[in-house]
Amino acid sequence: LDYQHVQVPFEITLWIMLASLAKIGFHLYNKLPSVVPESCLLIFVGLIMGGIIYGLNDRSPPVMDSDIFFLYLLPPIVLDAGYFMPSRPFFENIGTILLYAVVGTVWNVFGIGFSLYGICQVKAFRLQDVSLLHNLLFGSLIAAVDPVAVLAVFEEIHVNEKLHILVFGESLLNDAVTVVLYKLFRSFCEMPTIKSVDVFAGVGKFFVVGLGGVLVGLSFGFTAAFTTRFTKDIRVIEPLFVFLYSYLSYLTAEMFHLSGIVAIISCAMGMKRYVEANISLKSHTTVKYFMKMWSSVSDTLIFIFLGVSTIGENHEWNWPYICFTVIFCLIWRALGVLVLTSFVNRFHVNTITSKDQFIIAYGGLRGAICFSLVFLLPDFHRKKLFIAATTVVILFTVFIQGMTIRPLVDLLAVKRKRESAPTVGEQIHIRFLDHLLAGIEDISGHWGQYYWKDKLEYFNSKYLQKILLREYDQPKSSIVLLYEKLERKHAMELAQAGQLGHGPAHPSFLSSDRTVTTDQKLEDTLNPDVLDHMQEILARNLYRIRRTGPAYNRHTLPGDSEPTEQAKEILILRHKNL
Amino acid sequence: LDYQHVQVPFEITLWIMLASLAKIGFHLYNKLPSVVPESCLLIFVGLIMGGIIYGLNDRSPPVMDSDIFFLYLLPPIVLDAGYFMPSRPFFENIGTILLYAVVGTVWNVFGIGFSLYGICQVKAFRLQDVSLLHNLLFGSLIAAVDPVAVLAVFEEIHVNEKLHILVFGESLLNDAVTVVLYKLFRSFCEMPTIKSVDVFAGVGKFFVVGLGGVLVGLSFGFTAAFTTRFTKDIRVIEPLFVFLYSYLSYLTAEMFHLSGIVAIISCAMGMKRYVEANISLKSHTTVKYFMKMWSSVSDTLIFIFLGVSTIGENHEWNWPYICFTVIFCLIWRALGVLVLTSFVNRFHVNTITSKDQFIIAYGGLRGAICFSLVFLLPDFHRKKLFIAATTVVILFTVFIQGMTIRPLVDLLAVKRKRESAPTVGEQIHIRFLDHLLAGIEDISGHWGQYYWKDKLEYFNSKYLQKILLREYDQPKSSIVLLYEKLERKHAMELAQAGQLGHGPAHPSFLSSDRTVTTDQKLEDTLNPDVLDHMQEILARNLYRIRRTGPAYNRHTLPGDSEPTEQAKEILILRHKNL
Repeated sequence: LDYQHVQVPFEITLWIMLASLAKIGFHLYNKLPSVVPESCLLIFVGLIMGGIIYGLNDRSPPVMDSDIFFLYLLPPIVLDAGYFMPSRPFFENIGTILLYAVVGTVWNVFGIGFSLYGICQVKAFRLQDVSLLHNLLFGSLIAAVDPVAVLAVFEEIHVNEKLHILVFGESLLNDAVTVVLYKLFRSFCEMPTIKSVDVFAGVGKFFVVGLGGVLVGLSFGFTAAFTTRFTKDIRVIEPLFVFLYSYLSYLTAEMFHLSGIVAIISCAMGMKRYVEANISLKSHTTVKYFMKMWSSVSDTLIFIFLGVSTIGENHEWNWPYICFTVIFCLIWRALGVLVLTSFVNRFHVNTITSKDQFIIAYGGLRGAICFSLVFLLPDFHRKKLFIAATTVVILFTVFIQGMTIRPLVDLLAVKRKRESAPTVGEQIHIRFLDHLLAGIEDISGHWGQYYWKDKLEYFNSKYLQKILLREYDQPKSSIVLLYEKLERKHAMELAQAGQLGHGPAHPSFLSSDRTVTTDQKLEDTLNPDVLDHMQEILARNLYRIRRTGPAYNRHTLPGDSEPTEQAKEILILRHKNL
Repeated sequence: LDYQHVQVPFEITLWIMLASLAKIGFHLYNKLPSVVPESCLLIFVGLIMGGIIYGLNDRSPPVMDSDIFFLYLLPPIVLDAGYFMPSRPFFENIGTILLYAVVGTVWNVFGIGFSLYGICQVKAFRLQDVSLLHNLLFGSLIAAVDPVAVLAVFEEIHVNEKLHILVFGESLLNDAVTVVLYKLFRSFCEMPTIKSVDVFAGVGKFFVVGLGGVLVGLSFGFTAAFTTRFTKDIRVIEPLFVFLYSYLSYLTAEMFHLSGIVAIISCAMGMKRYVEANISLKSHTTVKYFMKMWSSVSDTLIFIFLGVSTIGENHEWNWPYICFTVIFCLIWRALGVLVLTSFVNRFHVNTITSKDQFIIAYGGLRGAICFSLVFLLPDFHRKKLFIAATTVVILFTVFIQGMTIRPLVDLLAVKRKRESAPTVGEQIHIRFLDHLLAGIEDISGHWGQYYWKDKLEYFNSKYLQKILLREYDQPKSSIVLLYEKLERKHAMELAQAGQLGHGPAHPSFLSSDRTVTTDQKLEDTLNPDVLDHMQEILARNLYRIRRTGPAYNRHTLPGDSEPTEQAKEILILRHKNL
């Protein structure tokens, strides 16, 4: 027996197998997943496993390695989230999402940090050795809502699209803030004195980390799209590029201390459209399926490991600190959501209702990211207390909040996701309104989201598609082809009936149908000028779309539109509709 | 910049990316792949990369790690090969394949080993310190034909199915022999004296290694099939099980020093049929696509690494030894194929032509397995010579033989693979002949392949399918349902016309159509015995298939066949045809 030799892959495979079998097991009993979220069940399995390992070995079971989590388990989930992100609601609410993600998270970090510092001043609690900086550091890791936990719970409760994207988008985009604040406070902890310059550098850093992530992600995304232009002959490795480039974007961002989550989401959202157009249908099925499968396995492993890591002797128990952490997490989130929403609602017609606000506040679940961050803390004498508090917060949010959120959604009658897809009429209506609003915004000089969307679409069709799409050699849409055919037929009929204006545009039209004598007679009566004029008329009517009215086009003046422009636009519109 | 942190995944991703981009690059020029096999181009890329690394670092580039090769790169290729193995030609030629794989490889090992030992006795060559055992050890690693190299070359030349399966099957199944002989000679090298017991133990070990591999593979395969019975509610992780179980079978076999290649092939061939029936169509597309993608990437990486590893200072050059190694590899393979084929042809009607024999001998390519094995050798003073000789043999076979085999196939006009799929007529004909031959073999008492195939099919439908397939609750085939419906209709018509034998089988048939008086009159005239008899006749005619002749069924006597038996058989036949 040579176990050493195969140990690493064997154990990895066994863990994945265990996770998959656990998933199958839950679904065998249909009742169970409808009451308890899968994440809770998986943590429970993990707890049992951890207990068994602890009982057998008599030492703490292995803790989920932070490196493994951030390098291997998190990327598939975030990639899946980014690739299947509904882009319309996301961009419609991007302002609100960013407000929650940035201001909300900062609010939570400082709120939790300062109030816990206040608790530490109470002598009876014996916590006076926990400094303000340590409390803020703890606040920075415990404040952020976890995308994995949110996804696992919100996937099952089917709230309306806007509410879902608000919570989920926040949980994804707060990564940039978390990364900056966590690293900032951690370096502050190690510094002897803190200058005000450092604080301002931290604020500046946030923009670098966030926007840098977006830039890295988009550049890898466009490279991926460009690469798939050339895979026509080897379809079989097409899906690979989607995974490779997005993973590289994540790793590159992590390497430069940028936000990896933001990078991989930008990459996925940036490439999706072009990659889908370039790769074959089967490749696309594989990409979609494999992404779902991979993220599902990662997700399962994370929750099982969370459970396993909970068991052991890493914890220092201090009732007041742990209880107040849970309470402050709830209070500050609720306050933050209330304040920020009242601010947001002032500028929007489509306001966030108080029911939605409650679910947003209540859906602020914490998960594996906090857990990995707390283990990454530098060693100091109260680290075990922080680990205990983090574990309790995670278990509290996942178990108590995760299990009660579905009944609460039912009880409050929160607006649900509509089950049916929008009808064609609705889709046309939405698209019509988009164009109308873009036009209104342009005329009124208000640069709103529709204006920018329209600009982006123009940039996309003018430059990006030409570079990134394989078959962008202006294929005529079927409606244009049909029109040409009908026009040609009509012209032939007219010509045959002898009613085409002053006569046939070209003798070749008739040479086969009429007798040679009439043909020659006609040709004799036409002077070259008339013939040229007719050919011009025919050419315009035969090979172009007839303009039935003064076309409104904001990018070209009425006179200078090229003949291919319109064909292209029709094509793009059809493409979008498809 | 924090490169250390992401180094491992980053470099792996970059290597895969390089491999994929190289593949795309070759296919951009359509001329290139039709002249030079892709494997040669990839080795060439590897050589250049190795040269660059060597030039920049001034030290040998990293050698392909044998562990990485055997644990991560080889399994995907073998899994792909096993999963897409055409089972009919494989099992039809299993005897010949095993003969080539077992006897042929042993022949080559001893032939090459002893003749190289002869060369070592020539004083002028300065090789007298290479012992017989070392030569045999070298023979054991250089003798085996490499499945990766064979697949890469034969995939492109499209020889006929039988020729392909002979070379390819041999290259897969010789793994068991190679493993045993290599480990045997390696342990002999370290032993002070060799007893004859050890030699016999070696022979016995071969059966353990080969059959053990088959057993491990089949048990994992059937477990995989059984697992996919329960994935109906979570389609998304279905493809995972195919990969997990087959990889586990490989690792388990390696752990017990059995043949991993044989195990993974048995696993793939064992589970394919049931897994395909259980999983959804999209899962199946994903499995197929991902397997192809993965094996393609592995394949590319192996050839690139082969090239990279060639550069460096691992080599000790000795002209006579290296030249004679190449010559002996060619001669002994040619002789072996000639002798074994003449033996095989004596027992077969469908003989292997001399052209095919030439291609089998010439297609004995060596590849990455030899290369990894030679690096796994224990350190001794002539190891570098062996490395050099192995490298030359691999490059010679891949470049010279790989590039000339296509022109030779054209020149000799070797029978090619038929382009079109067999017609329905042909398929029916083949299937008819199968049944006919199984019957003839059964009657004549000759237990040939058709007899065993039939037995296996019976065992499969009787036990395996019931356990492993999800929906095996005897769905009646549409032809049976139609027949029942027609029979029922016919019976009703006959009953209405009053022509059903001596009268209606049961009064309820007629109560709605006839008047009560006639009904009662009829009932009066029938005594209970006649009624029972009629009911029996009706039951047989209505709900069973009418037997039009004495049915031949080798598993049941004419009298005792159950009514569902026949429905099942029709179903299975239809299923196989589909």
